[in-house]
Amino acid sequence: MSSPTVAQLLARRQHALGASYRLFYEEPFAPVRGEGVWLYDKDNTPYLDAYNNVASIGHCNPAVVRAIAEQSAQLNTHTRYLHPSIVDYAEDLLTEFPESLNNLTMTCTGSEANDLALRVARCNSGGTGILVTRWAYHGVTSALAEISPSLATGLPLASHVRLIDAPDSYRRSDFVDSVKAALQDMRNQGIKPAALLVDSIFSSDGVFSPADGELAAAVQCVREAGGLYIADEVQPGFGRTGGQRWGFQRSAVIPDLVTLGKPMGNGHPVAGVVGRSALFDQFGRQQRYFNTYGGNPVSCKAAHAVLRVLREENLQANARDVGDYLKQGLNALAGRHELIGDVRGEGLFIGVELVEDRSAQTPATQATAAVVNGMRQRQVLISATGPDANILKIRPPLVFTREHADLLLERLDATLQALR
Amino acid sequence: MSSPTVAQLLARRQHALGASYRLFYEEPFAPVRGEGVWLYDKDNTPYLDAYNNVASIGHCNPAVVRAIAEQSAQLNTHTRYLHPSIVDYAEDLLTEFPESLNNLTMTCTGSEANDLALRVARCNSGGTGILVTRWAYHGVTSALAEISPSLATGLPLASHVRLIDAPDSYRRSDFVDSVKAALQDMRNQGIKPAALLVDSIFSSDGVFSPADGELAAAVQCVREAGGLYIADEVQPGFGRTGGQRWGFQRSAVIPDLVTLGKPMGNGHPVAGVVGRSALFDQFGRQQRYFNTYGGNPVSCKAAHAVLRVLREENLQANARDVGDYLKQGLNALAGRHELIGDVRGEGLFIGVELVEDRSAQTPATQATAAVVNGMRQRQVLISATGPDANILKIRPPLVFTREHADLLLERLDATLQALR
Repeated sequence: MSSPTVAQLLARRQHALGASYRLFYEEPFAPVRGEGVWLYDKDNTPYLDAYNNVASIGHCNPAVVRAIAEQSAQLNTHTRYLHPSIVDYAEDLLTEFPESLNNLTMTCTGSEANDLALRVARCNSGGTGILVTRWAYHGVTSALAEISPSLATGLPLASHVRLIDAPDSYRRSDFVDSVKAALQDMRNQGIKPAALLVDSIFSSDGVFSPADGELAAAVQCVREAGGLYIADEVQPGFGRTGGQRWGFQRSAVIPDLVTLGKPMGNGHPVAGVVGRSALFDQFGRQQRYFNTYGGNPVSCKAAHAVLRVLREENLQANARDVGDYLKQGLNALAGRHELIGDVRGEGLFIGVELVEDRSAQTPATQATAAVVNGMRQRQVLISATGPDANILKIRPPLVFTREHADLLLERLDATLQALR
Repeated sequence: MSSPTVAQLLARRQHALGASYRLFYEEPFAPVRGEGVWLYDKDNTPYLDAYNNVASIGHCNPAVVRAIAEQSAQLNTHTRYLHPSIVDYAEDLLTEFPESLNNLTMTCTGSEANDLALRVARCNSGGTGILVTRWAYHGVTSALAEISPSLATGLPLASHVRLIDAPDSYRRSDFVDSVKAALQDMRNQGIKPAALLVDSIFSSDGVFSPADGELAAAVQCVREAGGLYIADEVQPGFGRTGGQRWGFQRSAVIPDLVTLGKPMGNGHPVAGVVGRSALFDQFGRQQRYFNTYGGNPVSCKAAHAVLRVLREENLQANARDVGDYLKQGLNALAGRHELIGDVRGEGLFIGVELVEDRSAQTPATQATAAVVNGMRQRQVLISATGPDANILKIRPPLVFTREHADLLLERLDATLQALR
């Protein structure tokens, strides 16, 4: 199945890195080069990347590569010295947010951003309780792992966590009611809420968009109970949802804290928390926060290059246009393939739920794995999500065009056909 | 005092970044360029860098800059695809460790590394209790902040934490006894120990080196109580202590887990945990660990370049040689300046404790701040450490030469002279 080289590399990897490291696909993919929406293997075979939301403005985007190379050769140091790059970037980034969200703290990863947001929320609310969705994923630190049910089944969650339903438009959950019930349960247990923390596109839960007013109503309940609203924009942020720069903007309610990550540096490790200055002030009075690599000049120049390309190439508008086009095509496929139970998502963050039976909505977990692997065999990279891993996760770089969408649809059609 | 530009940048920074961000020095330093051991301000005035242990193989080392530029232009993606760079690096890095430490998991920051080590230790030990030194600093995540007393005075520590004395050779603490007492206290409180976590150079506590056998005796007690030994090598690692590659090697006892960070990518955000594969296996069976940017090809190439330069330029031997030379010079200064109470450290990680009175050992906190600022005015960058901030922290890039040491000594002499 695998070439000797791949098999050897696999064995060496297993030996040196160990059991925590997993790979995608039955036949692991070994890219050697990336450009735009394409990843190439050693034989120069192109794979259409419809999965990687990190390389959001295209693999190896030359503006980012140049910014990293130039600044790395000039100076790379920490934020206890004064450097314009972090100030220039912060000011520019903050113009993309509602006026009340006027401070940025930089970290290196989305996990560090979410973890810091928890610390700031707990410091300001005086509470510990966190509300997250039933299949949430917010990162890999100790504090995030214990509020990320999707990380491992069977592991106990922290006692201060309450799970709420994602706003599931397909199976018709009641998001607001479940938030109310969770808050009531916290009251019963004497747990003071610190925050509602939600991924604005509910990616790990299965890709959902709250209905109009749903999020506002939920946040109002949380705020009345003394908790903050943290919007996890690590995945939906930076224009991916098409209609707006940040996923939370689909709702009128403004978060207290917003966490950023993945596409922020197009692959360079940079992330951050944006929020109201009063919250950071209160936190800063109690304790210092210093992140050695966070906000270094190279990271800031990389992130700034990403922001500029995003604007100059109108990638948010492209995400909306191509995302809508792709969803139309997926809905057309649903007319021919019974397996497709639902097509949803925003912009270029799309979920396609596969079911064994449309009326019973039985998750087609095995078939989904077969589709993901079948697509990989046809040189198109996607993955699966949701508690039953039965939802195709389609989340390409934002430089994806209608022609790329056509190619994806054609290969998906062939893959679904071959499964019959 | 500051030029208008600096004042303006300061105000803008304060406005956009907020209160958690602090700056070094009464007059903030604003470097624009770095090369080797030198940082340059906008007027091209060179500052001798005797502080930054991140740019360990020299600011803007061309081998690292090249590695980053080349790989960024080629491919930057995650570890769920197969790529040789992480395997090549892991194998090479692991040759630098005792045979039993045979697995590497990569993260982006030292904080993420220490946080992961806690998770692995807790999973394997079945305990929660952590022993750290009285003025420890291990990182900025929620789980690390609550075991880092140096982060903020007055904040409550976690209930599962017990503080131990650093092996203070100047004030004569008893490290082993305090570990025994902490373990006894855990037993009394029904807390099962997970780990002893110590910075091998005890940097935040004031730069100390355990006496022969001290660490081994302490670790034996911890292991008998079911806990693991985590060596935090984020600061002392990669040859800085001169006599050995890793600070823990000064003792015969081999850690269960070793955390790496700061100098690992010479400023590029890369870090990791090295440990026994059985520990990672147990952890990996329970849960996946995936760090989006961790172990990406750019980070691995940067880290690999650092490791190669470290070897090719014999920087560990240089750290020993120049460190010994510098300590001799500092001891000579102690003969002329009563303020110097103690000179200690290993290789190019040196602490100079300043006291108001040598027999009473009264910490000279204000004088230390004056020395740090006086050195900055004389274009030499150092800082202070310890619970009373009265210990000069001298920790230059490892490409520091005897000539650089002479310059530092001359400026320190002048600074101390001016204080009288």
